[in-house]
Amino acid sequence: MIRRNDPIEALIDLMARLPGLGPRSARRVVLHLIRKRAQLLRPLADAIQAVADSAQECLNCGNVGTSKICDLCESESRANGMLCVVEEVSDLWAMERAAVFKGRYHVLGGTLSALDGVGPDELRIPRLIDRIDAENITEVVLALNATIDGQTTAHYIADQLEGRVALSSLAQGVPIGGELDYLDEGTITAAMNARKRF
Amino acid sequence: MIRRNDPIEALIDLMARLPGLGPRSARRVVLHLIRKRAQLLRPLADAIQAVADSAQECLNCGNVGTSKICDLCESESRANGMLCVVEEVSDLWAMERAAVFKGRYHVLGGTLSALDGVGPDELRIPRLIDRIDAENITEVVLALNATIDGQTTAHYIADQLEGRVALSSLAQGVPIGGELDYLDEGTITAAMNARKRF
Repeated sequence: MIRRNDPIEALIDLMARLPGLGPRSARRVVLHLIRKRAQLLRPLADAIQAVADSAQECLNCGNVGTSKICDLCESESRANGMLCVVEEVSDLWAMERAAVFKGRYHVLGGTLSALDGVGPDELRIPRLIDRIDAENITEVVLALNATIDGQTTAHYIADQLEGRVALSSLAQGVPIGGELDYLDEGTITAAMNARKRF
Repeated sequence: MIRRNDPIEALIDLMARLPGLGPRSARRVVLHLIRKRAQLLRPLADAIQAVADSAQECLNCGNVGTSKICDLCESESRANGMLCVVEEVSDLWAMERAAVFKGRYHVLGGTLSALDGVGPDELRIPRLIDRIDAENITEVVLALNATIDGQTTAHYIADQLEGRVALSSLAQGVPIGGELDYLDEGTITAAMNARKRF
């Protein structure tokens, strides 16, 4: 139906490599794009080009933005002495959607993993340590994922910063709207141990 | 974290409008693209541009390709008097993956629907009728979806072509690998009624 070096086939192949898409959904997306050429295909081509031209990692915190130093690091109001450490940019964005933290962030870019050969130098940890003094940080919130790798990394960072800043981590417990019947034993244990007076 | 008129935010908004993606998966895709700038982001920008510049509907059958008349309609070996009628381009591609049909196709572009105001003229049905004589069609295979709308449309087309060509439709029955316990009653009934000697 379609030749091997066809532009449509080439686009399907690329789309199928995006996370969460496979060959089937890539075909669906591409047909939809072709059908909505004016509203979607051309704007998407321009938008991707604009991101390719402008997106960059913040040299300070690792966030993704369109300038060398991101808006969060530029903002004076966020220089309140608090630094929230997250694994990935997506975690930073999730924290910002919650809009509960008003300080600055530090994106590690993953977790420590002896198996995958990921050490502190691969993880923007030296830069984190530099920032403590450079930005007069007084409290570091370790907002790493509640996974084994995330918690191992949190412990490593806590060891490095011990005595230099106040350290905290996100509370563990029952998620809002969560039903006990669907929670794992670890979460229930953590919630029970951290129970509060009613 | 990100300004309203930021190119990254604009790309996430567009991506979230693709079928099967939402805001969450769009953010994931965009972060992945930025991380894989050389391997994925720039090639994707080029590929989308190429499709925007070249993709078009075949004037004859409605397939999507890169020329005014698609390869299938151009191919002389496919002028075997058989014409397979499908609802959408994705159905044509699915048929071609099965590689079982060697004739030509006709893409209706949907199904008849009184409710949505879709009549025969919206559906490339006049063009289908023209093609019967113009391409010496002897058999029309109605490969419409086994839905109410698909079957209504198949019956309408059958009425129009009655007496002019041989008409057939895809067999209905148990899908290969299908388990009876997971099939609906309609499929089991159709399979029983069309049972074959073992």
